[in-house]
Formats: sequence, C-alpha cells, structure tokens
Amino acid sequence: MSVSDADKLITSDDQDHPANLIPALCAKFWTLGWVTGTGGGCSIRDDDLVYLAPSGVQKELMKPADIYVLSLSAQDPTQPQQRSYLRSPPSYRPSQCTPLFLAAFTRRGAGCCIHTHSQWAVLVTLLLEQHEEANRNVFEVNNIEQIKGFGRGPGKAGNLGYHDTLRIPVIENTPHEEDLTEYLEEAMEAYPDTYAVLVRRHGVYVWGDNVHKAKTQCESLDYLFQLAVEMKKLGIPWISDIPRIAADRT
Amino acid sequence: MSVSDADKLITSDDQDHPANLIPALCAKFWTLGWVTGTGGGCSIRDDDLVYLAPSGVQKELMKPADIYVLSLSAQDPTQPQQRSYLRSPPSYRPSQCTPLFLAAFTRRGAGCCIHTHSQWAVLVTLLLEQHEEANRNVFEVNNIEQIKGFGRGPGKAGNLGYHDTLRIPVIENTPHEEDLTEYLEEAMEAYPDTYAVLVRRHGVYVWGDNVHKAKTQCESLDYLFQLAVEMKKLGIPWISDIPRIAADRT
Amino acid sequence: MSVSDADKLITSDDQDHPANLIPALCAKFWTLGWVTGTGGGCSIRDDDLVYLAPSGVQKELMKPADIYVLSLSAQDPTQPQQRSYLRSPPSYRPSQCTPLFLAAFTRRGAGCCIHTHSQWAVLVTLLLEQHEEANRNVFEVNNIEQIKGFGRGPGKAGNLGYHDTLRIPVIENTPHEEDLTEYLEEAMEAYPDTYAVLVRRHGVYVWGDNVHKAKTQCESLDYLFQLAVEMKKLGIPWISDIPRIAADRT
Amino acid sequence: MSVSDADKLITSDDQDHPANLIPALCAKFWTLGWVTGTGGGCSIRDDDLVYLAPSGVQKELMKPADIYVLSLSAQDPTQPQQRSYLRSPPSYRPSQCTPLFLAAFTRRGAGCCIHTHSQWAVLVTLLLEQHEEANRNVFEVNNIEQIKGFGRGPGKAGNLGYHDTLRIPVIENTPHEEDLTEYLEEAMEAYPDTYAVLVRRHGVYVWGDNVHKAKTQCESLDYLFQLAVEMKKLGIPWISDIPRIAADRT
Repeated sequence: MSVSDADKLITSDDQDHPANLIPALCAKFWTLGWVTGTGGGCSIRDDDLVYLAPSGVQKELMKPADIYVLSLSAQDPTQPQQRSYLRSPPSYRPSQCTPLFLAAFTRRGAGCCIHTHSQWAVLVTLLLEQHEEANRNVFEVNNIEQIKGFGRGPGKAGNLGYHDTLRIPVIENTPHEEDLTEYLEEAMEAYPDTYAVLVRRHGVYVWGDNVHKAKTQCESLDYLFQLAVEMKKLGIPWISDIPRIAADRT
Repeated sequence: MSVSDADKLITSDDQDHPANLIPALCAKFWTLGWVTGTGGGCSIRDDDLVYLAPSGVQKELMKPADIYVLSLSAQDPTQPQQRSYLRSPPSYRPSQCTPLFLAAFTRRGAGCCIHTHSQWAVLVTLLLEQHEEANRNVFEVNNIEQIKGFGRGPGKAGNLGYHDTLRIPVIENTPHEEDLTEYLEEAMEAYPDTYAVLVRRHGVYVWGDNVHKAKTQCESLDYLFQLAVEMKKLGIPWISDIPRIAADRT
Repeated sequence: MSVSDADKLITSDDQDHPANLIPALCAKFWTLGWVTGTGGGCSIRDDDLVYLAPSGVQKELMKPADIYVLSLSAQDPTQPQQRSYLRSPPSYRPSQCTPLFLAAFTRRGAGCCIHTHSQWAVLVTLLLEQHEEANRNVFEVNNIEQIKGFGRGPGKAGNLGYHDTLRIPVIENTPHEEDLTEYLEEAMEAYPDTYAVLVRRHGVYVWGDNVHKAKTQCESLDYLFQLAVEMKKLGIPWISDIPRIAADRT
Repeated sequence: MSVSDADKLITSDDQDHPANLIPALCAKFWTLGWVTGTGGGCSIRDDDLVYLAPSGVQKELMKPADIYVLSLSAQDPTQPQQRSYLRSPPSYRPSQCTPLFLAAFTRRGAGCCIHTHSQWAVLVTLLLEQHEEANRNVFEVNNIEQIKGFGRGPGKAGNLGYHDTLRIPVIENTPHEEDLTEYLEEAMEAYPDTYAVLVRRHGVYVWGDNVHKAKTQCESLDYLFQLAVEMKKLGIPWISDIPRIAADRT
C-alpha cells in the first residue's frame, strides 16, 4: 500500500469519519479535564478497521494526520505485542493504550473505547482503598437517575434502572500501560455486563457499541464519579436502601 | 400534513425560533454540566405549539431537525399516555420528559421548561435526606440576593425579595420518568407559587413564562443549589435570621 | 437629541468602545459565573459619559443596543433618585446598580465598575459572619502573591506588596439594591484606599481607574475569595505571620 | 536595528512561531485559571532568541506585538539586572519573571518556561506549611499514573515511572519577583532532575526542553496539585506504599 493510499484512510470530508471524530472528541475531552498533559485517549472501530490516537500528543491539538489505522483481522494472535498498521503518522509512536482498546473491540465488539485520566475516576479508586479488603475492587452506586445512562450489558436489551446497582470493577495499575491488558481482560470476564473498568490511581476505560454510546456512557460515568466524591465529602453513602414508589415496566 | 409541511415547523432563519433556540440552549446547558450523557432537556411552548428535544441525543450536538412538535389542544385528555405529533424526527423516540414539560405548560401556562441533571440539584436532595422527616421534601433558603431571581408566583406581581424564603418542593424519583408526572403535578398543587420541582437523586424541573424567565430562573436556582452545597461543607445554615437594615418598597 | 443621534452614542466599529466592551466583558463574566441569571453587571465611564447595562438581561447575550448612556454632569445632585439618560434602549429598565456604579465614578474617579454575584464573594461574607463581631465587616488576607494585583489606593503610587494585608470592607445587603448606595459610600469613606466593597450574601463591587484595572482587580479579588474559601476548608488561616526573606524595594 | 527590523522578530504567519504561540498559550492558560488578573506568564527560547510576555497584560488578550525579544548571548553576565532587548513593545515594561525564565533557559537549556498562579499550586504550598519543618520545602507524591508525564531529568532518558516519587522543591516567596531568582537557582542545584519549582503562596515555574514538554508537564503538574488538594480533603496521603503487580521494563 503506497503512502498516499494509506493516507486515504484518514482523509475524509465527513465530520463523522473516525479520523475526524477522534480529534474532535479528544479536543472536547481536554476541556473536561479527561486527557490532561497527553494522558488518556480514544479509539474508534469501523468494522475491521481501528483508528487510534498516537502516544504523547496534546489531545486538544490532534489532527486527522496523527491517526494510526490497523486491521483487526490482520493482527497475528500469536504475537499480541507485535501489531502491524495500515497507516502510521510519520513522527509518532503507537499509544500504549492500543492493546486495551483492542480488548474492548475484540472481546466486547465495542465500536469505540475512551480512556480518561479524570481526577474523579482516580479519586474514586483512592477512596475505595479505604474500604475493607472485600470491597476495594469494585465501585458500586445505586438509586441515582444517571445510572440509567448505562446498558444492561452486551446482548442484553435496555438500560440499567434507577434502583439498580451500577458496578464498575477496579484493577490495580501497572508500571507499563500495556501490562494492564491481562487485568482488564480478567475484569471483563469477571464482570461480563460492564462497559467500563477503573484503573487504580490512573483513570478509567469506557467503551460502547458505537461512538455515541461510548461517549455518553463515559460522560455519565464521570458524572457519577464526581457525584460520588462529593457525596463522600458530605457523608452520604454511595449505596442506599430507599423505598420504591413506582413499579418498573417491561 | 405532508412531511415537508411538517418540517416547515422546525425550519426558520430566526435564531429565536424554538427549533433553533432549543439546540442552542442545550449546547449551553451541556457546558454547564446540566445535560451530561443525554440527561436532561428543554421544551418551548409557542401558543398552542410545543417544541421538544428527543430522547437520548447528545445535547451539545442537537440540530433543529431533531425536534418534535405537537399541538397542545390536539392531545386527547382521556389518553394522556398517547400523544400525537405534528412533526417527528425520522430516527428518534419522544423524550420521557414530555408529560412533565406538558404539565408545566398546561397547569402553569409556562412558555419554557428546562430539566437538568445538575449535580448541585442532586446533592441538595441528598443532603435533605439527612434532615428530619418533616423537612426532607422541600429545599428552603433565605437571605441570599440571588433569591430575587424568582417570580413571586403565577399571577403575582414582582419577584421574591432578599429576605424572603425560596421554597422548592422535592418529589421522590420513579423508575420511569413519565411516572413522575403525577407527583410533579401534586407538588405544583401543594406549592402553587413555585417555578421548580426537585426530583430526589435525579435533578430538577424549572419553568417560566417564557424562555428568558425559565433560563434565568434555572441559572439562579442552580447557583443557589451550588451555594447551598458549599454552605453545608462550611457549616453555614441555609436558613438564617439576620437583621433587616432597610425597608422593602412597594 | 434625536433617537438616531442618541444611538450614535452606542454605535462604533472600535471594539474598545464602551458600548462594545460592556457586552464583551459581560459575556466573559458569564462564563466565570459572575453574572448568573441576569445578576451582576458592568459600567464604563468615558470622561463625562457613563455607559450602563440595563436591568434583567441575560449577560452573555447583551448587545450594544441594550446600553444606557448618561452624562454625569447633567445629573441633578438634589435628585439622586431621578436620573436622566442621553440614550435608553427601547424595552428595558435602568439597572438598580446604577447609583452604586455612579458612586465609584464620582467619589473615586473610577473609569469602570464591575458588580459580580460570584459565589466565592458570597461565601467569604458568609464565613465572616462566623467571626467575632469586631471582625465580621472586613475581609483580610496577607502573604499571598495575588495581593500585588491591587493598587495601594487612589492617588497613591504602586501596588500592594506580598506581605501587605488586603482589606475589603463588607456592607450588609438591603432589600433594594439602590439602598446599598449610602452604605457603599460609607465604606468608601471608612476605607479610602479600597477598590472594592463586598455586599453580604450578595456579591462584590470592584472598580478601577480604567477597564483594564477594574477587570484585572476583579479577577484577582475573585481569585483571592476562592482561595480563601478553599483555605477555610483546609484549615489554613487567611492572616499569617511568616518570615520576610527579602527586602521591599523603593 | 531599525524598528521595522525589530518587529520582523515578532511577525510570522506560522502559528508555531514563538510570537504567535505565546499569546495562544496564554489565552489557553487564562481559561485554566493559571494567569488570572495579569498574573503568571510564558516564555519561549528559540536557539539564542528568547520571546517574553510583558508585565501587566491581560493574558487572554495578548498579541504578538506585545512580545519582547532578547538575545541570550548578548546579555552582560556581570550585569544580570540590566537586560538589553532586540525588540520591545511600545508601551509596556518587561516582566519581573524575566530573570526566572532566563534561569530555566541558561541553567537547564529549557526551550520554554511557564509560570502560573494556579490556586492548586498555592494550596499545595500552604498545605506543606502544616508539615513538619523537614518536609515543608518539597512536594512529594507517588503511585499516581500522571507522574509518568515528567522526564527523569535533564540528560536522562525516559520519564518517571508510576511507582516513582515526583519531587518538586518549594522556595519561599519574596516581595519582588526578580529576587526569587537566586532561590530558584538554588533549588535547581539542589534538585538537579526537577522540571519545576513551587513558590510558596505564589505559584509555580515549570519548564521543558520545548513548548510541548513544558506545556504538558505544566498540565500534568497542575493535575497532580489539584488531585493532592482533593486527596487532603478526603484524608488520602500523598505518599503511599502499595504492592507492585508488574515489573518495570528497560
């Protein structure tokens, strides 16, 4: 594939093309404090093609020309550390987040995965360290309307309800981000319905069937993390037992 | 009515046309954290016509083409769950907030109703849960200048004064947003002067005679909710008894 | 003066013309949370002409056509409540802040006066209520670099130093904003060097010799109010006694 | 050098030219609360040429025409207080930050230096005052992912690791900013690997080999300062001893 053919993969007038969407989303995420100082990132899968932000870029300044593209089916499963790219930007390195994004695509069929360093996510994992051993590795909150922003799980119809408990597993951080992959995959196995995994003292990975769902779930989750931190400051527990005043519907 | 006639209802070069105003307002509300992750919304009534945002859209990306339009007088009062629309967007569902917005229009004659998931609103309702039973269902604050941003009530002249107590009723949340309608209407009956109803662990509905009043009352209320949370953190009571140093005027 | 002559007073291509600056400043202040829900405002004096925002407008939407203009020298000093305007917008009322802005212009020779409802200002006045009687009516902070953002006082050369104590008097709020005028003027007399007066449970008035100084002093003051609230949360006193490690210069 | 030749130094169509970058960066920093009320600033070195913002400007309004330019090699080392400029704006004074920026350029070979008055930086230095004498003069945090945003030090390959302790020295503030220079230089000597120095009750100086590194390190540091303040509010220590679950790599 010639260089110019490769560049066609990231060239489009359609603002919803992944190579245009990733920079637009990252710029928005920067204003939310999610991708400060080159941290965090975003990847979109369009069928077999995966679009990835590179390592170490200022996220609010990203351009389509900075995007990596790879074919999921062209990767050698026996060499997970060796990835081949259909298109690479001239002067960057691939992001260490790449295998984690790929896990969301291959294991969950996600269409988009977002990684933030949101302080609210980090603070929630720090607050969980103060819990008893048995409760340190999962964030739980119930009886908050915003919980309804999450799907019930892959292959399940509908979203969580107001009285449901949202559970987001927490994995420990590793010195190298790539090494998180096995723990992320374990958490996906242990929590088959989750659309997100918290990384202790680091941030969160959130995915969804498409860009819309990944982005709105990521927003809803960040909202809940911020709320949870404020609740802790005000002495309000994350899990409550409140009366149900109306029925669920089917 | 042909499709193109229907689309005329949401097509205008006037930036103050409801179909243009709703997306502009929602984009602004998104930056304020009021409509995170598709939560919240906004509806405008122009005489008999009601313009509504659809369910599940990213509020900062809304377009006039996403707007529903219905005729208030054309709705069948014996079938409150069945609503007919003059104009529907091709690929969305109506918002579950619709009957709550309609309650503000039909029972209060409001010209605009805003629903936010503001964390300050949610935190205020959570803090009220810590109060005694008798005081859990109304937010009260007095002796704050911003209280003057609220009208005294429908059909009453002028705004609340600095020393007045602003009272916002709180209703419990239901699994389905539509089911809030009867409780919202009860709260409107019980608090005939209120321009807003808090929904526990969910957010707030705020309305006004027109877009200007609904929007500025919603801002003033969110300001007071945020202030109230900060006051709680600092040990400052919401209700105070302070000397009056100058007279009211007539 | 014909209507069109009057409108010339607020028509200019110069972005630094007061009729253009006031809307631009107010829009910026709205994003800072200073003029939420039509609260707060801004006035600029150019020699004898005073430009004023009207009452009750959404500050981020203001236009030059919304501006009032009056001549300072044309006002009747025996009728302080009766003001005559060279130019009035067609559909607004003058702001109740007007006599307070005029006090800054006539008594201090200010070129610009800003009024905010900043929550940090309000919280500082609330925290001062918890102080002993003798210390409730002045905000004091020292040994913070940002203090250097304030002039030493009218007619005095240079700015406050790092080790100086910034003192901002606090007046009690009145039901009608106009009635604050006498108290504001008293505070100006009692604190002849101050460029600002806090209004309890309401906000702050800040002025300066020109727009640049009023705006940067208002920003620096809001910074100090926010810092003071955070210091209180963290148990850090506003007034400290720290060693001086280098000399002042002359 | 004629005036017009001097102005060529700050005239370019390249948005990455230092005279264009400094205003763009300062405008961005203003929205982050780093350069409130003319505080803070930014300087860029391009080989022997140093570009500097002037004193006392509103940072979000800066223009290329406001920029000072000097030649590092043309300065007289025996007269550190006397600096000669290749280009000066017509109506400003040089910033008191100038010798501190120059220290980063001459002693560290930095390509960019940023000075913020971020409240998070100030609060961290205030919180450190509450520590024992021996621990008051250095901010330390470990086991947070964002630490990886910092290089190991000048001439050292790679960045800090997740489990490393980031150490930022704190110097006491002086009445005149220029007088900080000797203390900043001492701190650079004492902490040869640091890319930043906190100034008590004032802010922080952060530098890097180029604009990208200075800016992203400054963002990462501000993130850590904010996180540290929130951790303090929530009773979470800045230094922790947590298990290592995966190896470092070489």
